[in-house]
Amino acid sequence: MKSLFAQDLRVVNVGLQSFADNITAAGGVATQLDWSPPAGADPELGWTLATLIGDPRIEEANRTAYDRYLAAQPRLVDVLLARDAIPALAERRILHSGPPIAWADMCGPQRGAIAGAIRYEGWADDLNAAAELAGSGAVALEPCHDHGSVGPMAGIISPSMPLWVVENAAAGNRAYSNLNEGLGKVLRFGANSDDVLDRLRWLGGEFCTVLQTAVRAMADHDLKPLMAQALQMGDELHNRNAAASGLLFKRLTLALLDTGLPRDAVARALSFVAGNDHFFLNVSMAACKSMTDAAAGVPGSSLVTVMARNGVNFGIRLSGTGAQWFQAPANPVDGLYFPGYSVHDAAADLGDSAITETNGLGGFAMAASPAIVQFVGGTPADATANSRRMLDITLGTNPAFTLPQLNFGGTPAGIDARAVVDSGVLPVINTGIAHKQAGVGQIGAGITTAPMECFEKAVAALAGGLR
Amino acid sequence: MKSLFAQDLRVVNVGLQSFADNITAAGGVATQLDWSPPAGADPELGWTLATLIGDPRIEEANRTAYDRYLAAQPRLVDVLLARDAIPALAERRILHSGPPIAWADMCGPQRGAIAGAIRYEGWADDLNAAAELAGSGAVALEPCHDHGSVGPMAGIISPSMPLWVVENAAAGNRAYSNLNEGLGKVLRFGANSDDVLDRLRWLGGEFCTVLQTAVRAMADHDLKPLMAQALQMGDELHNRNAAASGLLFKRLTLALLDTGLPRDAVARALSFVAGNDHFFLNVSMAACKSMTDAAAGVPGSSLVTVMARNGVNFGIRLSGTGAQWFQAPANPVDGLYFPGYSVHDAAADLGDSAITETNGLGGFAMAASPAIVQFVGGTPADATANSRRMLDITLGTNPAFTLPQLNFGGTPAGIDARAVVDSGVLPVINTGIAHKQAGVGQIGAGITTAPMECFEKAVAALAGGLR
Repeated sequence: MKSLFAQDLRVVNVGLQSFADNITAAGGVATQLDWSPPAGADPELGWTLATLIGDPRIEEANRTAYDRYLAAQPRLVDVLLARDAIPALAERRILHSGPPIAWADMCGPQRGAIAGAIRYEGWADDLNAAAELAGSGAVALEPCHDHGSVGPMAGIISPSMPLWVVENAAAGNRAYSNLNEGLGKVLRFGANSDDVLDRLRWLGGEFCTVLQTAVRAMADHDLKPLMAQALQMGDELHNRNAAASGLLFKRLTLALLDTGLPRDAVARALSFVAGNDHFFLNVSMAACKSMTDAAAGVPGSSLVTVMARNGVNFGIRLSGTGAQWFQAPANPVDGLYFPGYSVHDAAADLGDSAITETNGLGGFAMAASPAIVQFVGGTPADATANSRRMLDITLGTNPAFTLPQLNFGGTPAGIDARAVVDSGVLPVINTGIAHKQAGVGQIGAGITTAPMECFEKAVAALAGGLR
Repeated sequence: MKSLFAQDLRVVNVGLQSFADNITAAGGVATQLDWSPPAGADPELGWTLATLIGDPRIEEANRTAYDRYLAAQPRLVDVLLARDAIPALAERRILHSGPPIAWADMCGPQRGAIAGAIRYEGWADDLNAAAELAGSGAVALEPCHDHGSVGPMAGIISPSMPLWVVENAAAGNRAYSNLNEGLGKVLRFGANSDDVLDRLRWLGGEFCTVLQTAVRAMADHDLKPLMAQALQMGDELHNRNAAASGLLFKRLTLALLDTGLPRDAVARALSFVAGNDHFFLNVSMAACKSMTDAAAGVPGSSLVTVMARNGVNFGIRLSGTGAQWFQAPANPVDGLYFPGYSVHDAAADLGDSAITETNGLGGFAMAASPAIVQFVGGTPADATANSRRMLDITLGTNPAFTLPQLNFGGTPAGIDARAVVDSGVLPVINTGIAHKQAGVGQIGAGITTAPMECFEKAVAALAGGLR
């Protein structure tokens, strides 16, 4: 004891940095160890968490859910109009991204997109009438996720829109996503002018016919190998889909060479696909939805099956708590803005595209995509660090999706809500940034996180169900 | 002095490891510094090198040559039959890879490929007659590089073969390469059976017509941006061309949608292109040839403009020594072999494809291509280290070709023969491995280096010219 005090003081400070700062200021040396109490230091939640961690019922349920996720084999099997794919869309109903939200509470881009969709469907003659109709309750507004589907940004799906149809061959479940309209003035950012609706009509008409023919005739419908290959080619399959779009273009082209479709219609369709390096995003999302849906509904499982944003709130679902949403206000996006725009112009985090992160892609697979940092910010080393950090909160790694920069280790996959609350590590999400006003479009891209409150609520609910 | 000897011995050992080992064995501590004398400790060459390093005439010449290399703008402008592109091929002449070599000295794959080309041209009725003709001297056999062209592996170009035509828009010089036949039994590995010749006839006929139409009609002929994009998508543009092949497929497809060519011919051509992830290799090589040719012929320049192998010898050229070849036996390839094959089956390093490394691509750009290590061996960290090491022997980095893993720094480019001899660092080359017998095909891939002797001879010749 005596000899201890005779030595120079060597301090390890755990937690609050300010204690270490004081020692350093006084000429001492302190090693700072970042740490904060689990469950945000909330005693009740901390106790709940302690009961959940190691609970054999949860471990077993998670193994089942995770195995179903790993076993999923998404196949791109068809292109259908929404009303032919989703029974609920036989009626006047519009689907939107994120958790449920009333018209009055929606953000600008989502309102703009819904008004545009109502005009597109011909349910109103102008945008004012469309907004009135949406506000009246005469058109049901429900989350995409409640109908096995996903949409980026505003995420609007109305009955006459064409959808990608992805089927998980392992379990037979289907998932849907709308088509990517390209960049600029597009419905998913809330634009609803005549040119936007004209493009939607072409997408739902001639283009849909060509695409449907191509998808049905493709020699290879399997998406997992295509996505795995794209990860070796610099995509993370959320904000970077250049390689996957090129690989899909190849499949579609080869399928169309043998069809009897009019040459000019094929030319217009393929030119549209070739001109959009994000074209694959919606396919990626539908594939991801089909994979996490495979893991859904296992009682007791703390596996996160949905992360989605409606421009106001962030919502998640767990496998073990079914269709219940756990919501919190969305975190801000740390991003790069296009010239002339700043954080003051940005809508809150928006869209169902975080289904890619829920599947171990996007931000979780950033190590595969060093070039993404030129779009979302940071350095290639940051990108790799993001992937590594996600290992703290996932049930495992997906051997089907390997990341070269992690020495071909699988991407971290299967978010365990318990681990998020326990570690304080939040799921990282690569995301586009929408202007808060309808119709301006994308104004940047960046990195954000899922809010802790969602996971705290989810963990509490899971515990309640297990009592 | 006294106090020095009172201290514990702390040793830095420069050079031979064994001295340090003795100290360590005796219980001491020695820090080993790797070092070997420049110019392989050859006093005469060392003296020559000393006179060349810092010579203002060389510095000035290298700046000129390097600037011309950086300024080059390769454009894919045409597809032509060799006899229409290269005047010397109006006669009975066949071009091969690497430095000059007589028929009697050639390796198996190169002989096999030449015999096949002679049959393809109809100059002999069978392979025996073809070999006899080749040996008789009645068909001139000359390096591709002597005629502004390059070919992978055996590198055979005969008059009726179609060639890619790449033009450097900055200086007007043109470079040529043959077409990639795919993998398996192909002429470039020495195969010369009827099916190989049938494929060559289709490539030179229907396919050539479609490809020529497509290339002439392409909206965008610039190759530098395409190659730069491929580097962001995991290609190093020598042994990995998956992304670049996909980008070229897109350009060709879009160009063909408007033409009046027969639909089935277009379908066959595009299917062939889509089925070969190495299809872009030969375009990459022609583009590289056009860029280094731009730097050629600057008196006094020690910039390496050619590295090429004929399956026996490795040859290089310098900008300042014109068409003169500096040759040495090729180094072995450290590689991964396909199942059933080993180093005993391998031909020596073969082909003109090291023109990519001469341009800062291939092994020099390995940092861009972590996935390449699954083909050539090593780890992604090794790949990045290879790119970094090449900075020791290059005149600069090419800002047009950025490598994400080097924080978007340019690829090391412009090999300075002086720096190779001075540092002992050899240019790294990613390469395919051919079976030593004609026609077996590719049996592996790996990493090799250019032999030091080439650079020593080149430096001596450059010094001689400057005296």
